[in-house]
Amino acid sequence: MAVRAAVAGASGYAGGELLRLLLAHPEVEIGALTGNSNAGQRLGALQPHLLPLADRVLGPTTPEALAGHDVVFLALPHGRSAAVAEQLGPDVLVIDMGADFRLRDAADWERFYGSPHAGTWPYGLPELPGGRAALEGSKRVAVPGCYPTAVSLALFPAYAAGLAEPEAVIVAASGTSGAGRTPKPHLLGSEVMGSMSPYGVGGVHRHTPEMIQNLSAAAGERVSVSFTPTLAPMSRGILATCSAKARGGVTAASLRETYEKAFADEPFVHLLPEGQWPATASVHGSNAVQVQVAHDEAAGRIIAISAIDNLAKGTAGGAVQSMNIALGLPEELGLPTIGVAP
Amino acid sequence: MAVRAAVAGASGYAGGELLRLLLAHPEVEIGALTGNSNAGQRLGALQPHLLPLADRVLGPTTPEALAGHDVVFLALPHGRSAAVAEQLGPDVLVIDMGADFRLRDAADWERFYGSPHAGTWPYGLPELPGGRAALEGSKRVAVPGCYPTAVSLALFPAYAAGLAEPEAVIVAASGTSGAGRTPKPHLLGSEVMGSMSPYGVGGVHRHTPEMIQNLSAAAGERVSVSFTPTLAPMSRGILATCSAKARGGVTAASLRETYEKAFADEPFVHLLPEGQWPATASVHGSNAVQVQVAHDEAAGRIIAISAIDNLAKGTAGGAVQSMNIALGLPEELGLPTIGVAP
Amino acid sequence: MAVRAAVAGASGYAGGELLRLLLAHPEVEIGALTGNSNAGQRLGALQPHLLPLADRVLGPTTPEALAGHDVVFLALPHGRSAAVAEQLGPDVLVIDMGADFRLRDAADWERFYGSPHAGTWPYGLPELPGGRAALEGSKRVAVPGCYPTAVSLALFPAYAAGLAEPEAVIVAASGTSGAGRTPKPHLLGSEVMGSMSPYGVGGVHRHTPEMIQNLSAAAGERVSVSFTPTLAPMSRGILATCSAKARGGVTAASLRETYEKAFADEPFVHLLPEGQWPATASVHGSNAVQVQVAHDEAAGRIIAISAIDNLAKGTAGGAVQSMNIALGLPEELGLPTIGVAP
Amino acid sequence: MAVRAAVAGASGYAGGELLRLLLAHPEVEIGALTGNSNAGQRLGALQPHLLPLADRVLGPTTPEALAGHDVVFLALPHGRSAAVAEQLGPDVLVIDMGADFRLRDAADWERFYGSPHAGTWPYGLPELPGGRAALEGSKRVAVPGCYPTAVSLALFPAYAAGLAEPEAVIVAASGTSGAGRTPKPHLLGSEVMGSMSPYGVGGVHRHTPEMIQNLSAAAGERVSVSFTPTLAPMSRGILATCSAKARGGVTAASLRETYEKAFADEPFVHLLPEGQWPATASVHGSNAVQVQVAHDEAAGRIIAISAIDNLAKGTAGGAVQSMNIALGLPEELGLPTIGVAP
Repeated sequence: MAVRAAVAGASGYAGGELLRLLLAHPEVEIGALTGNSNAGQRLGALQPHLLPLADRVLGPTTPEALAGHDVVFLALPHGRSAAVAEQLGPDVLVIDMGADFRLRDAADWERFYGSPHAGTWPYGLPELPGGRAALEGSKRVAVPGCYPTAVSLALFPAYAAGLAEPEAVIVAASGTSGAGRTPKPHLLGSEVMGSMSPYGVGGVHRHTPEMIQNLSAAAGERVSVSFTPTLAPMSRGILATCSAKARGGVTAASLRETYEKAFADEPFVHLLPEGQWPATASVHGSNAVQVQVAHDEAAGRIIAISAIDNLAKGTAGGAVQSMNIALGLPEELGLPTIGVAP
Repeated sequence: MAVRAAVAGASGYAGGELLRLLLAHPEVEIGALTGNSNAGQRLGALQPHLLPLADRVLGPTTPEALAGHDVVFLALPHGRSAAVAEQLGPDVLVIDMGADFRLRDAADWERFYGSPHAGTWPYGLPELPGGRAALEGSKRVAVPGCYPTAVSLALFPAYAAGLAEPEAVIVAASGTSGAGRTPKPHLLGSEVMGSMSPYGVGGVHRHTPEMIQNLSAAAGERVSVSFTPTLAPMSRGILATCSAKARGGVTAASLRETYEKAFADEPFVHLLPEGQWPATASVHGSNAVQVQVAHDEAAGRIIAISAIDNLAKGTAGGAVQSMNIALGLPEELGLPTIGVAP
Repeated sequence: MAVRAAVAGASGYAGGELLRLLLAHPEVEIGALTGNSNAGQRLGALQPHLLPLADRVLGPTTPEALAGHDVVFLALPHGRSAAVAEQLGPDVLVIDMGADFRLRDAADWERFYGSPHAGTWPYGLPELPGGRAALEGSKRVAVPGCYPTAVSLALFPAYAAGLAEPEAVIVAASGTSGAGRTPKPHLLGSEVMGSMSPYGVGGVHRHTPEMIQNLSAAAGERVSVSFTPTLAPMSRGILATCSAKARGGVTAASLRETYEKAFADEPFVHLLPEGQWPATASVHGSNAVQVQVAHDEAAGRIIAISAIDNLAKGTAGGAVQSMNIALGLPEELGLPTIGVAP
Repeated sequence: MAVRAAVAGASGYAGGELLRLLLAHPEVEIGALTGNSNAGQRLGALQPHLLPLADRVLGPTTPEALAGHDVVFLALPHGRSAAVAEQLGPDVLVIDMGADFRLRDAADWERFYGSPHAGTWPYGLPELPGGRAALEGSKRVAVPGCYPTAVSLALFPAYAAGLAEPEAVIVAASGTSGAGRTPKPHLLGSEVMGSMSPYGVGGVHRHTPEMIQNLSAAAGERVSVSFTPTLAPMSRGILATCSAKARGGVTAASLRETYEKAFADEPFVHLLPEGQWPATASVHGSNAVQVQVAHDEAAGRIIAISAIDNLAKGTAGGAVQSMNIALGLPEELGLPTIGVAP
């Protein structure tokens, strides 16, 4: 018996990627598709690659439209999910792809998002310590941010094993789809092609407290994060270069052993063989994560680097993975593990 | 019972894409993987995205290595397939992704490829008139070239319906993966990013006689082809802009009706709604084809435009589609129909 | 004594490129800079690469602001130039980078632009037969469209020499800056990177009548044009692939000789050596034009291909070149002839 | 009286960019052009954008070929410059664009480059404290590496003013031209487009000791450097994200004042207004440097970010700037300061 899924916010990049994945999911039947400003339009005009759904028309995001589904995915602007979720029954699995329910600290939420805190839901990153247990059978899931997904997977093993000082320095490059589909001058192809530029520098990016939350939980102590995001001339992909000072006694061998153990049973996270480094092309369009780690003895630092597809594992793939766990389906069901490369 | 498939030439782009698709094919078990200069290497070093096969080691392309499979895919340099195919029994399905067995005219072959003609196999473009019948039960398949796939699908309906004069003018843009993986200066990222350039201008590109063969067969008369390929700053994708003078009586409505009929039952070819045009991003990584057609009354020409992924529908996807038909499997089995966009 | 130049419409791509060129022009002093919706803003916020002008503030486009200059460049939306030009005296050199004064046929104008025809000014493509003479001493210049620049330079020699049948088929790829700086969904980096797509297919692109005008003038008879523009994943550059049936007696040698003669004395147009083809990277940021021509005997067609930078030779460079001629300055003054490659 | 300049290694990207700049330099006359494997070839075949030099033929790199010039630029593989330089007289200005004479510490050289140390020449980064004085009248110049140029300009003000702890963490993204023109599989357009990937991770990149040398000199104490280079999908440009712990008492205001003072009189380095961040597109093809700095109070770190064109300011532009100073010419002569954007 198929899982009937609704998608609120089907016209954006996250919604489109989710539909691409759900169309290939053997247990999912796609139900209502809603939008706001795009309600009334054919999906084919908005998402020309989703040919099997081309003639579906977006409805408005109302409780009526979303009723009668087993799963409702929310791909809404920040701050809008709570109102919609409240009107869905407690037995419906609600998966929020926005930020609203990710943070445990209300003050962090208010400082970075500027609105009242709506609460905290089980966090959809099963690879974190205790992550799967929190999702099994849950009826509410907060899908992680794309940068926190990449960064947390790169660094949590070092922190969980006590190998790193609690001051992480992170520089990440993201494809432009991470900035969404609303047209803005600095996101024009003419501006981004051939150019790298930073944004949200100096601790102001909204994903910073989420990284601190995840790494601190792994470390068992407060970890500070210096995070610099950069915009790269590509549509998709995040490459996160993360480092922290190594604690005494860390060696390249102990570091590698720690990471091997952390990811040994993970279906989507691949610690690359020594000498090979992550590339976003390798995970393009898939739920796979590539990780590699090095010990810079001269500088006394651990360097952990991960590559994900920001729209797949970083958003829609992570959402489907969490849905599978929450519903008791096989975790990998319907999720591509091989990137479209070259 | 699974279909056991060997891939000769697993280190190139065509071989890599084929393996990506075969890994997702529910009826295929991947057997021998061979290479020539790369024999002895781990596949993980050559195709870092194919993580499930990372530890497979390429063997040499020998009859022994390829024996014992139901299907053997040949992704070899031009001119090498015949010698390998001869040593495979008549009951093995051999699918040649090279050019060796595409052309019916030996003189054409010799003029464009400069070596003796090896023969002609059933042609793996099922969408052409009579195309499926030629493949059903066949033990040999010649996979079409990437440009001829895009061009033939764009123009054959017009020719089959007698709407166009037999002089086609074609300009196509291809992603760089179509030029293969052998490092050459003009294929460096530094050269191709930010640049469009033509090559093989003036009727000398090897895919020209294959287009002439397909369009002439559809038209029932000799069609001349002026073909200009261009290299575009993208990894994948072909956009083929094809035109011919309209014959008397052609109207926009009759043209559209002809194309609607031609593709009505095709699982992979999508005639777009009026006003929407093909984009290679929409078919990236998929076996889908987008087609649109227009009638330029002032210039008296039919303009038909198609978008494919050169490595998928243009090579490896076309190969799997043909395999499915030849083996009596559902034609769409294991083939993605939705592009990875944006 | 410096030429004092004002730029109306300094916030767009054409205006920005013009200012880049004027800053390097030894005889020009940059005067008023105006904008409409951006009036009141620092230029540094709008054109971050124009560092020497970063602190200049855009004024409104008024007669007062533009008064007192030797040259006024208009980089305005279509249909706005006439009203501004009227208020500038007859002794001021007015160079319109928009379409308003390019077409001689009022009906063509009205059909393609949908507004009353404002008139016809001397046409700023000096390489055309008689082109320089029309500009010398002129006080009004209509800068050609970017596509017509590329196409006319590729094909006029064949038409002027009577070598080609009067039915041209043109497919051109343009960088996204040609579509301007107003944010639109289909121009987002996420959409255009990795994708080729056509637009304005079937004879509806506004540059079509301008090409017909130029080629017909060269041919001495009406030339029909089938024009298909495509959007390429690059910021700048146009590659125009142009063809027409060869008239009887045309040979590769006669064709080459014709083109050699046509461009022998041209400072910016380079007929490439045989075997070498134009690439947009080679002319990136420069006023140079690369042209090559071939004779496809089998198809009976002449193929002429040109590469320009759409913002430089295709707009702002062409404007400065015309200014130089109109003012009696050396034609090449201040204009880069070498592309920024790779 | 013109400065006569020879270029040894004219076929690579550094040599090509140098020639582009020298062609626009009003005091330079281009003399001998040499290559090694490319000796005997037309420059037009190797550098198709350098149209004015298209018919020049590369000679072999011999003392005879290089004799009789005022300036000799060496754009040779690492380790080759010393032998050539020895044969040039002490009165010839020799500008080495390779690494051979950059490092003061012979042990560093040998550890990172694996060959005997050839010596140390005056270092061509005039913006560093004392940098100009070292170059005035010098007959030997070691042009800095591209990454050290970007990193040193971003961080030296903080270190010179004692604001930062001596442990720098740097992540830089480079365009692919920084990896040179020798064809290698991982540099193919198909591989790099749409992908970000790191390389030389963990303190092994050869530019690391050069950064340490520059930052330590500015700080007056040994500065450790953790450097991670990444390859970005663009032809040109370096974006360097550099950070270090802030020393007690640092404020955003003191930081900004320090940087304003450091660059107040610099012709090429632009400290951007607050709120604006560097973008490589803004300096594309120019000798300009964009710098911005922030104080992340929560993480206790200074973040300094710079953007350069790796081939221009990072190599050939820096070489010309140093030549101007060494010869007593105006420092900015012939050097573009405005990037080709968009």
